[in-house]
Amino acid sequence: MLAGLFVLSISQAQEIQRQRGSQVISPEIAQNNSVTFRLYSEKAQSVVVNGSWMNRGATLEMGKSADGVWSAKTEPLKPSMYHYNFIIDGVSILDPTNPQAMRDGKRYSSTLIIPGEGSEFVEVNDVPHGALSKVWYNSPTLELTRRMYVYTPPGYQDSKEKYPVLYLLHGGGGDEDAWTSLGRANYILDNLIAQGKAKPMIVVMTNGNPNQTVAISDKKTERANESPAGGGPITMGSKAFPNSIVNDVIPYIEKNYRVLSDKENRALAGLSMGALQTQITGMNNPNLFNYLGVFSIGLQTEFGDTTTDLLKAYDTNMNVLKQNGFKLFYIGVGKEDFVYKGVELLREKLDEHNFEYIYNETEGGHTWANWRNYLSDFSQRLFK
Amino acid sequence: MLAGLFVLSISQAQEIQRQRGSQVISPEIAQNNSVTFRLYSEKAQSVVVNGSWMNRGATLEMGKSADGVWSAKTEPLKPSMYHYNFIIDGVSILDPTNPQAMRDGKRYSSTLIIPGEGSEFVEVNDVPHGALSKVWYNSPTLELTRRMYVYTPPGYQDSKEKYPVLYLLHGGGGDEDAWTSLGRANYILDNLIAQGKAKPMIVVMTNGNPNQTVAISDKKTERANESPAGGGPITMGSKAFPNSIVNDVIPYIEKNYRVLSDKENRALAGLSMGALQTQITGMNNPNLFNYLGVFSIGLQTEFGDTTTDLLKAYDTNMNVLKQNGFKLFYIGVGKEDFVYKGVELLREKLDEHNFEYIYNETEGGHTWANWRNYLSDFSQRLFK
Repeated sequence: MLAGLFVLSISQAQEIQRQRGSQVISPEIAQNNSVTFRLYSEKAQSVVVNGSWMNRGATLEMGKSADGVWSAKTEPLKPSMYHYNFIIDGVSILDPTNPQAMRDGKRYSSTLIIPGEGSEFVEVNDVPHGALSKVWYNSPTLELTRRMYVYTPPGYQDSKEKYPVLYLLHGGGGDEDAWTSLGRANYILDNLIAQGKAKPMIVVMTNGNPNQTVAISDKKTERANESPAGGGPITMGSKAFPNSIVNDVIPYIEKNYRVLSDKENRALAGLSMGALQTQITGMNNPNLFNYLGVFSIGLQTEFGDTTTDLLKAYDTNMNVLKQNGFKLFYIGVGKEDFVYKGVELLREKLDEHNFEYIYNETEGGHTWANWRNYLSDFSQRLFK
Repeated sequence: MLAGLFVLSISQAQEIQRQRGSQVISPEIAQNNSVTFRLYSEKAQSVVVNGSWMNRGATLEMGKSADGVWSAKTEPLKPSMYHYNFIIDGVSILDPTNPQAMRDGKRYSSTLIIPGEGSEFVEVNDVPHGALSKVWYNSPTLELTRRMYVYTPPGYQDSKEKYPVLYLLHGGGGDEDAWTSLGRANYILDNLIAQGKAKPMIVVMTNGNPNQTVAISDKKTERANESPAGGGPITMGSKAFPNSIVNDVIPYIEKNYRVLSDKENRALAGLSMGALQTQITGMNNPNLFNYLGVFSIGLQTEFGDTTTDLLKAYDTNMNVLKQNGFKLFYIGVGKEDFVYKGVELLREKLDEHNFEYIYNETEGGHTWANWRNYLSDFSQRLFK
């Protein structure tokens, strides 16, 4: 019936295929959760796989068959969400036949989810889904109009109810895309809310680079020698961004969304650099949040004055927090994380003040696999 | 001050760089709009560039310097938005140093915008930006809960005003991501609204594959031998999806957004397959839309019964449209488009009934460069 459009589709597919070589299937997940990767190239000298399930810097060699198809098979992998690249003659590339990919900073990687317990919570399951919006807000503090993401839970559109809010911050090298593209925050919340494990909440995901209006994937084009828009990480640990959360982001959200606007219904969490920003914001504003989530950073001595200032804020304000009915200080860190020592110092500081906290020490290091798990654990403890 | 995090950033950068080879800059746009592409690989046998500014199948050879950097420079390019890939030893890849990329079906390409008149309208300019939301709606017609995009114009959040709505459909091989990722519809509208050239409007972008809940970039993982979720293009020309627009999408939007819900304030447009769906929906529901935009398809004889049915709808309902105050039938097509003959037949059919239309014949073929231009032209003519 639609022969004409089939011809179009097939000719487009052939055009692509001609450039890619013969049809291969990749990734292919076997019933035992081993994965076969394939790539067609007659001419490549070497092809390897680098995946987030491997040790840092490790690779899996792909072998070439007579028909030019390179392939490699992993051991069975634990159900989880992974990312990987092929490295062809030294160049890191996407798996050309995998439509699922994500960007981490400048780099794109293919995405791989091994189905099962351990990944179900990040999957797009057949449950009610919240809405995910990219909105632009004015930040007088940073003198920029900026983009952020707002997740509204299932039912938000249809009700007049007001909701609690989690403000969720990314790490160094990331931007406002990170918590949904790499972190799957929207799907994690969809799944937890559907199971009754998390309260329906709004999640606000900002860009923590105080000089950026928008992620580099969307920023305006520059010619050679034009001055780059958006600064480096130098200002990420300054108070500029924490101040903008307090003065610009929270007021915008509370004006434009149906929000329970008291500290009982406000949480702040972040990973790595965002966990530093969480501490700076939370400890200098002890009347704003009843819940703080600090994922994979602590009191890092290597941050110098930033940490000295932060220590003063802890010493000054921990009692204020306690007196104000503060509910939850949550720390997540991996045993092999390079920030582990700073997290120990943070725990000592909290212990010194008899300040209660939940401590979630996991396997692994400074990874999105951990951050997705911490978000899932943390968000189940909020607003209850 | 933040030495520790610098160490982290730099070590991450080095990790990536180690895999990519020495630092190269790519793409580099010169003042005269020629572009230099670069890629580092000691081992590659051949590297070429394939870009959307070239003729179909053409490539630009990259040459290798003694230090392993492959490079090629284009002639000056016209200001526009382009996409391109490197092909390394026969494998199509992204430019590893370009953070801007987009997905077309299964394939990722790097994005390149040459600044100037001709691309300014798709850029992220310093103008008020609307919000772009991914929302999930129930489609009883298709028996699915599905994702779509809704663009709300600047000012929507702050006002109580009601807005007109453009329903915008993608082509074969695309999905609900296409009109914003490849089509830049949200930025095109931001820019036109800021200049006073388009009325503030809501734009709704659905997934036109009637068996898909969500784009393949987000769909749930499948193991080998599991039946694929989501069907092929076979049903795209059927009436199932047009019926779901009428019965599911429009009611959802009119219930959940502040919308002017009469035909004077409702427009429907699509490209290629979406332009077929636009004709089927618009001509079978002559009381729903005052504006129809048909980009790069017409009455294609190769569609057999689908076109026969559509012809009957034209013959039956064109007078109904005219009597009902229908405002604009818009046709856009490229001189070299393979659907050109079908568009001629459509124009003959409209002429036969003395049905007025605007005809925008452009250079080029079945391309996103044309569809972005048609959207810009069409949306300036709406709701006035």
